[in-house]
Amino acid sequence: MIGLERMAEITAPAASKIVLLVIDGLGGLPHPETGKTELETAHTPNLDALAREGLCGLIDPVSPGVTPGSAPGHLALFGYDPLKYEIGRGVLEALGIDFDLRPEDVAARGNFCTLDGQGRITDRRAGRLSTEENARLCLALAKIKLDRVQLFVMPVKEHRLVAVFRGGGLEPEVADTDPQRLGVPPLEAVALSEPAQRMAGVANSFIAQAREVLRDAHPANMVLLRGFSRIPRLPQFGQVFKLKAAAIAAYPMYRGLAKTVGMTILPTGPTLAEEFDTLAQHYAEYDFFFLHIKPTDTAGEDGDFEGKVKVLEEVDALVPRLMELSPEVLIVTGDHSTPALLKSHSWHPVPFLLRSRWCRSSGVDSFSESACRGGELGRFRGVAVMSLALAHAQRLTKYGA
Amino acid sequence: MIGLERMAEITAPAASKIVLLVIDGLGGLPHPETGKTELETAHTPNLDALAREGLCGLIDPVSPGVTPGSAPGHLALFGYDPLKYEIGRGVLEALGIDFDLRPEDVAARGNFCTLDGQGRITDRRAGRLSTEENARLCLALAKIKLDRVQLFVMPVKEHRLVAVFRGGGLEPEVADTDPQRLGVPPLEAVALSEPAQRMAGVANSFIAQAREVLRDAHPANMVLLRGFSRIPRLPQFGQVFKLKAAAIAAYPMYRGLAKTVGMTILPTGPTLAEEFDTLAQHYAEYDFFFLHIKPTDTAGEDGDFEGKVKVLEEVDALVPRLMELSPEVLIVTGDHSTPALLKSHSWHPVPFLLRSRWCRSSGVDSFSESACRGGELGRFRGVAVMSLALAHAQRLTKYGA
Repeated sequence: MIGLERMAEITAPAASKIVLLVIDGLGGLPHPETGKTELETAHTPNLDALAREGLCGLIDPVSPGVTPGSAPGHLALFGYDPLKYEIGRGVLEALGIDFDLRPEDVAARGNFCTLDGQGRITDRRAGRLSTEENARLCLALAKIKLDRVQLFVMPVKEHRLVAVFRGGGLEPEVADTDPQRLGVPPLEAVALSEPAQRMAGVANSFIAQAREVLRDAHPANMVLLRGFSRIPRLPQFGQVFKLKAAAIAAYPMYRGLAKTVGMTILPTGPTLAEEFDTLAQHYAEYDFFFLHIKPTDTAGEDGDFEGKVKVLEEVDALVPRLMELSPEVLIVTGDHSTPALLKSHSWHPVPFLLRSRWCRSSGVDSFSESACRGGELGRFRGVAVMSLALAHAQRLTKYGA
Repeated sequence: MIGLERMAEITAPAASKIVLLVIDGLGGLPHPETGKTELETAHTPNLDALAREGLCGLIDPVSPGVTPGSAPGHLALFGYDPLKYEIGRGVLEALGIDFDLRPEDVAARGNFCTLDGQGRITDRRAGRLSTEENARLCLALAKIKLDRVQLFVMPVKEHRLVAVFRGGGLEPEVADTDPQRLGVPPLEAVALSEPAQRMAGVANSFIAQAREVLRDAHPANMVLLRGFSRIPRLPQFGQVFKLKAAAIAAYPMYRGLAKTVGMTILPTGPTLAEEFDTLAQHYAEYDFFFLHIKPTDTAGEDGDFEGKVKVLEEVDALVPRLMELSPEVLIVTGDHSTPALLKSHSWHPVPFLLRSRWCRSSGVDSFSESACRGGELGRFRGVAVMSLALAHAQRLTKYGA
């Protein structure tokens, strides 16, 4: 695969526009009664028409057999090899709650947990305490004082929280304090590099004080930290691809991912229709749009086959609004599969279509897992999506003389 | 492709079982009269049913156009990139005769050859002398005394032998003494690294003495050595993949390859049926089984198209015995192609099928080269087989958050 350095050498500005529509968790598995996946079940005449006119295939976001998290799945679609570029769990969690993370901040994902009288972990999720109770405890934890470091402690869902440490010179190479098993005490925060000694000390000071603050908060009488990380310094999307890029996403984590690669975030409403409105309103101002659709993944995670089918039909009904804009390149795909049958992200390859004036007709008659398999692109790595987009937008010069 | 280090981070133990059935030299070429390959000619109703239910594709064990030896072909199937991990020719030859090679041993592949009166090579295979004569000469060579080094010299087939040098501090970076052409004398053993000086000296002492021992053994009046090597220190299969793995193979080289990656070798009888018996007997004890079928490759190497067809039908008849065990993942593939028309290993991609509960139906109606080409997996690298196996066995956690 051509790397970002070489890519930057062959990208060239142009007047063409690219729309990347990411239907989160798009791919599925056949329903046992019908033998059809969610996408094969949904009535999607507009997407089917695009598949007939465009270029189709199946993508492996990371590599065959590997189930991608949201970050690797999106990084691949943005052209960043997810085996090379990584985003830490702490950073991702902070992005997920729209926290305005600064480049020097170190973020950690936290879990409330339960310790017994001997200080051993008996429940790594503190009985999945309520988000309300979580919020109350985070307020107490946020009052902890750390030497020359500003602390933020914010609730996520149930037992999950984010801790952000702000202060010069904090390096994130600190091992998890979560031993990932029961019957043992939480681990000390251990520096994995010499420059991370200070961060490890700060984390241990936080943990020691948190133990006091939470003394009477059983079952949530302790906190475990993992995924200490900083925003990675990624090559910037606009510079590598010579694109003025905007992201439209109702969910904060996806806005955060787009921001990490340097896209401009467009404020938008929570519904799909509002996301499409936002695109239309700003269409003249940018030449690349990442439009993220979340509810397909949510339905998949919930095991709601019919719900996922409905969202797909809702998306399909909005597709004509994209066509009215006539982007030179329109891509419809997902960041990974989320089959309702598995109630989770999965490793199955993801349907992909690209429509442009410069496609060979691919003989595919509908937009589905089985039909895309026969498309000209075959099965390919997600990281190739951006070069295909740029090529069809006539934004790449020749490689080599 | 995700490497073994990263793989080790996402593998997780589970109760599921995986059976990897390797039909050696599986792929073929069409018979000129029928236009059908060996696999397309064979009546294989059971494999065809698996192909209909499962996931199909064609694998390139190494990379397109590259003909794999047995070691790279199997390393790829075991998840070890054969372009990264290598097994030397000397080691492979020692494994092939079931020699109990120790980690510190240096093994070399040898050829008896013919020298003329001026010491120049006139036949690199000594007239392909008989295996019996070879054995007699090896007994004589084995009596050679080397300084602080224990020597083993063992016959293989016809003109081939294995020499094993045992003694502390022998490093294998020594160049071949076989110049691979006629009319020149054998080469001195030359160290390719400073630490290998001692091994080069030992090899030269062996060669000088061998010249004396074989003085009157024309046409086998000299020996050429190549592929000096030690067992590579490979990441261990059980640790990387969190699997308790067993190998069932009637031929020693394949047991040796499995042992090199750390699988347990199960004693088995020489017939295919006995190999399947062994699997059934030990099914409860392990969670990964490598079952190796040799006679397909042998028939292919012999140019025996019909013979290969018959073995394939024999394997097919045994497939129901695998199905009775209901492994969560069953894979049927080969380590390379061995078309009877070529009478040798070849570069042609190899049919692959994977059956599990979590497959999309692939629309493939039989197990063959042409049908597998249309499968969901398309054409892919052999090194991806293990991640697909683990994914479908639900033994992989998400990559990235």
